[in-house]
Order: sequence, then structure tokens, then C-alpha cells
Amino acid sequence: VVAVSGGADSTALLLGLDELVKAQKLSLTLIVAHLDHRLRKASKEDADWVKALARNLNLKAVINAANVKKRAKDTADNLEQAARRSRYEFFETTAKEENAQLVLTAHTLDDQAETILMRLIRGSAAEGLSGTESVRRIENGSNILLARPLLSWARRSETEQYCRGRRLRYRVDEMNADERFARVKVRKQLLPLMQSFNNKIVEALTRTATLLREDAAALSEQADLLLEQATAGAARKKLSHSSVNVNILAAAPPAVRRRAIRKWIIQSIGHARRVEMVHLVAVEKLLKGKGGRTVELPNRIKVVRKAGWLHLSSKGQNSVEKHAHDL
Amino acid sequence: VVAVSGGADSTALLLGLDELVKAQKLSLTLIVAHLDHRLRKASKEDADWVKALARNLNLKAVINAANVKKRAKDTADNLEQAARRSRYEFFETTAKEENAQLVLTAHTLDDQAETILMRLIRGSAAEGLSGTESVRRIENGSNILLARPLLSWARRSETEQYCRGRRLRYRVDEMNADERFARVKVRKQLLPLMQSFNNKIVEALTRTATLLREDAAALSEQADLLLEQATAGAARKKLSHSSVNVNILAAAPPAVRRRAIRKWIIQSIGHARRVEMVHLVAVEKLLKGKGGRTVELPNRIKVVRKAGWLHLSSKGQNSVEKHAHDL
Repeated sequence: VVAVSGGADSTALLLGLDELVKAQKLSLTLIVAHLDHRLRKASKEDADWVKALARNLNLKAVINAANVKKRAKDTADNLEQAARRSRYEFFETTAKEENAQLVLTAHTLDDQAETILMRLIRGSAAEGLSGTESVRRIENGSNILLARPLLSWARRSETEQYCRGRRLRYRVDEMNADERFARVKVRKQLLPLMQSFNNKIVEALTRTATLLREDAAALSEQADLLLEQATAGAARKKLSHSSVNVNILAAAPPAVRRRAIRKWIIQSIGHARRVEMVHLVAVEKLLKGKGGRTVELPNRIKVVRKAGWLHLSSKGQNSVEKHAHDL
Repeated sequence: VVAVSGGADSTALLLGLDELVKAQKLSLTLIVAHLDHRLRKASKEDADWVKALARNLNLKAVINAANVKKRAKDTADNLEQAARRSRYEFFETTAKEENAQLVLTAHTLDDQAETILMRLIRGSAAEGLSGTESVRRIENGSNILLARPLLSWARRSETEQYCRGRRLRYRVDEMNADERFARVKVRKQLLPLMQSFNNKIVEALTRTATLLREDAAALSEQADLLLEQATAGAARKKLSHSSVNVNILAAAPPAVRRRAIRKWIIQSIGHARRVEMVHLVAVEKLLKGKGGRTVELPNRIKVVRKAGWLHLSSKGQNSVEKHAHDL
């Protein structure tokens, strides 16, 4: 399933893949997927254009429409988030219906650089600054993979050039010029200014992201080990697996310890949504025996220090179901 | 030794410290240090102003001048680097002559944010993005500490406000308005643009820096352990300590392995200058047995793979002395 908006990136991806398939260099069956978000007047024309493109290439197209405005109103999401969720749900549904194992999107190196800067502006940690993954499961536990084959090397200017070379007039989304959207402003103002310092800024940012992703992976592995050690004695002491040893956690470096605490919460209640750095720091203070013996966290979690162990309990176990759609 | 340029930051630091000392809330003997870089016409006036300020506060002042232009010409340094080196050498010499244990500089949260952005623009790893340390030895092995008491909390606007509140007209360095300097352009253009996305951008950037510093510290600890394990068997096998076990290194996560390889080089030849990511990746390829069995690195280092071990040799041992001033 190739996600095609009709813009230069996704049109180039589709054309390139189709060329490789037809030259028998790739053995894939391509299905075009397009979701009309109905946020712009021209969106119906885009859908028709993608339909015609697929027909010309002799490919199956699945075109659908979503009421993104209503979804945004019904949930706490903003328009961008609601559009994104609708889109990925549609891709997943299409993949299931078509028995496809792979959903491909056309994100480029430029998208990656923009994502990294948006995360930096929010003050993210290494995980956030790692940017988008090239390959991941489309949903936890799903067999369908979401892959971004252009993400690590192709520039937006190259996809435009490729389309022009194929004499194809791709669609231009006027929302991509609307600087009220943070991403557009990053693209139109922030990246060009940063490029005036370093002509290879996109490469520099994505190199940093790659290094930080590797850092985060190594620290996550360390945190898994630490959590294993910190919970190991609990069964022997007839404590639940929601108990961790204070001394073992306290001796670890903060970067590993905080990641282990987050994993502990996920292990205990299934997720760690709304758990911020300030909450992890509060649990760390418990470890050091400073302040009280109890800390209240989001998701109605309570962490209590008692006799060398931290115990986690949650009254809101149902919050797992309640927010399952966020996963 | 308080480094005082005469600008708002260092003037505020000096006034604040002096106030605390005279109120007997701090037990320190303050010595004012000022280096005239002779890069601007007004620099002599700045030196006189700092001298007068110290006299008014009844403090000893050490004022010196350097020929930064000549130094830049004689070395490969640009003006900013040459000025920086001259300055820190002067502070260290002054501290030694005055038997001072501490050199204080007035870097603020704003300086930290600027440093982080400049490193990001270069595509730095976590270590670079950690920004400037609050406390470090002024030189490897020295007992004198270099500390930046304002770095983690004070804004530049606050130091200006503090000076105005004390009715002191601090000096304004016209080079601080010259946007040909990357740092000035970051301050005057990039940070304001980023602030239009997030009003607390300086806090966001410095929060990220703190988290990445902790990540880097944990990974460095891991890399020390890994290197210890990877060199442990060498003595038993009658190999030099410049040999590391291939299997042990190969099994580690890349983020830890690369840091261990860098540390191995430092352990072997005293430094890892000019060793870039591309060199570490070349050594990694040796580990995987891809390509040849020998890699040449900067500083005339050769790494050879033989019978499950990597051996490091260097013809340029004298490069340790040659570049000692870079440490």
C-alpha cells in the first residue's frame, strides 16, 4: 500500500516503485491509497488526480474520505493530529483489507529535519530528537509494517525534479504554504535561516538524529537490564512485580534510571501517557529518601516507598481501555 | 578570580559576588581579571573601566593585554578561537600567580542556548549538544576549577536589569552586534525566530542539553566498562594494552562501542583529536570483518585486525607533545 497524496514526494515514490516493479527489479504488488481529508476545496480534485494516476499506471487505487473536522471536534486533537490519525487508520484498514504486509509513505530527509527541529523547539530528550523511524509496526502487535523508503536519503527537491523529469505535474497543497502551521513555518523560515549558517543543515540535523537514536537504543537496553535487576528480588520477598528495589535503582546513572522508571510504569499499567520528566524526578526523590514517602503520578498512579522497595498501584486500570486508541 | 569583560553579565556577577562577600554570606577573596584583546578601538577604555570598577569595590585587579591578531596569524585558529585561548590562558596564569583555586566566568542561560544551537548547526552528537559544563578543571590535571555560576539559571536580560538596578552603566561590546560572527547571528536572528514558536525556547534548549549530558555520562560509563572487558584478556594473551577483543566490542550497541573505540584511542596515544565519526565507523567495519584488515586513522594511527583482536599502533607518538596546547 503506497500512501499517495498527489504531492511531489508521494508521486515520485509511486512512480519510482512502479518503474522498478515493471522493470522486474522489485517483486511487489502496488496498491495506491489516498485519503481525502476534506479540509480544502481542491481536495476532491486531488483525489480524482490520484485515481487517474493509478489508472494510468494500471494500479489498483483505494480512495476514501474522512470528516477530519468532526473528528477534531469530537476528540481533544487539533486538526493536524486528527488528520494524521484518520490517515494512518485508513492506511492500516486498507492494508488489512488488501492483505498487504507493507504500508509505504514518502517522507523525505527534509521532513525528518523539520520533525527534529519541531521536537527541539519543545525541548525533547534524545528519543524525540531521534526523529521518525524508517521502519516500524503500523500499530503495537500488528504484522503490518510502516516503512519510509525515502526518509534517510532523498531531498524534497529531488522528488520534485524526478516528477518534472517524468513530465508529471504533481499536485500542490496550498496548506503547505500556510505559515500558521508550525511545520510550514519551520520549512519556510527556520530551516532556510539555519542553512545560512551551514549549507548542509538537513544532513547535519539528520546525522545528529541518527546518533541520538543509537544513544537512546543503548540506554533503553540498559534500562531494561536495570529494571530486570531491580524487580528480580520481588518474587522472593513475596512482593508483586510492581515493586522495585530502591538501592539498585538509586545506584544507576540518572539517564538509565529514569528510563527504567518509565518502563516500570508501562510494565505495571500498560502505558506511560502524561508521565513527564517532572514525575520521573519525583520518583527519583523517593529513592533518595528526600521529601515524603508517597508520590502521586498521572493515570491515578501512586508510588509508595516502604522498607527498601517502591510499590506502584493504580486505581485507574481502566484508563488502559479508555485511551487504547492513543496507542 | 572573576573574569570581567565589563559587559552586563560579568559586571553583574562581580557586583553580586562582592555584595555577598561584604555581607559575609560568602567567604571568598575576589580578584578581578580582565584581558584586553586589542581587537577594537574602545578595548583600552573597557580595561580602564574595569580597573576603576575594581578600585571602587576595593578589589585587586589584574589587567593584561594580548596580541590576538598575531596569535591567530601564527596558529591555524580564527580570531574568535585565538581570543578565547588567550583569555583562558590569562585566567589560568592569573589564578596560579594569585594562588586562587577558582576562576569564575559569567556565562548565562542565553550563552548556553546559543552554544547548543551552534553545535546543532554543525550536526554534533549528544556530547556537543550538552553545551558548556557548569564546573570543570581549567586544564587536564590542574587543581584550578573553572566555574560558571550563572550558566544554569540566569538570563542575560536579568544581568542587565541587575546592573541598571545598581545604577551601573556596563560596557557594550560593539562586536556583540556584528552579525558576521555566527554566535551574534544566532543571538539576534535564530533564537528570536525560535522564540516565536516557543516563548520558553531558552529553557527548552537548556533542558534538552541537561538530558543529553546525562545520556552522554551514562554512555561514557558504559563505554569505560566495555573497554575494560574488551582489553581484559590482552595481558593473558601477552598482547599489549593497545589490543581489544573483536567479539566483545562487536556485541555491544553502536552508541557504546563507538565511545569505547574513541576511549581506546585516547588510552593508546593520549588524545583523539581529528578522529571523526567516519573513522570510528571504519574501525567498526573491521570488527564486522567487512572490507580489509587494516584501517588508517588520523594522528598516524594504524588499526589491524588479527586473530580475533584489533591492534593499534601509532608512528606519531610525538604528536602528543606537539599538540599538547590543544588539550
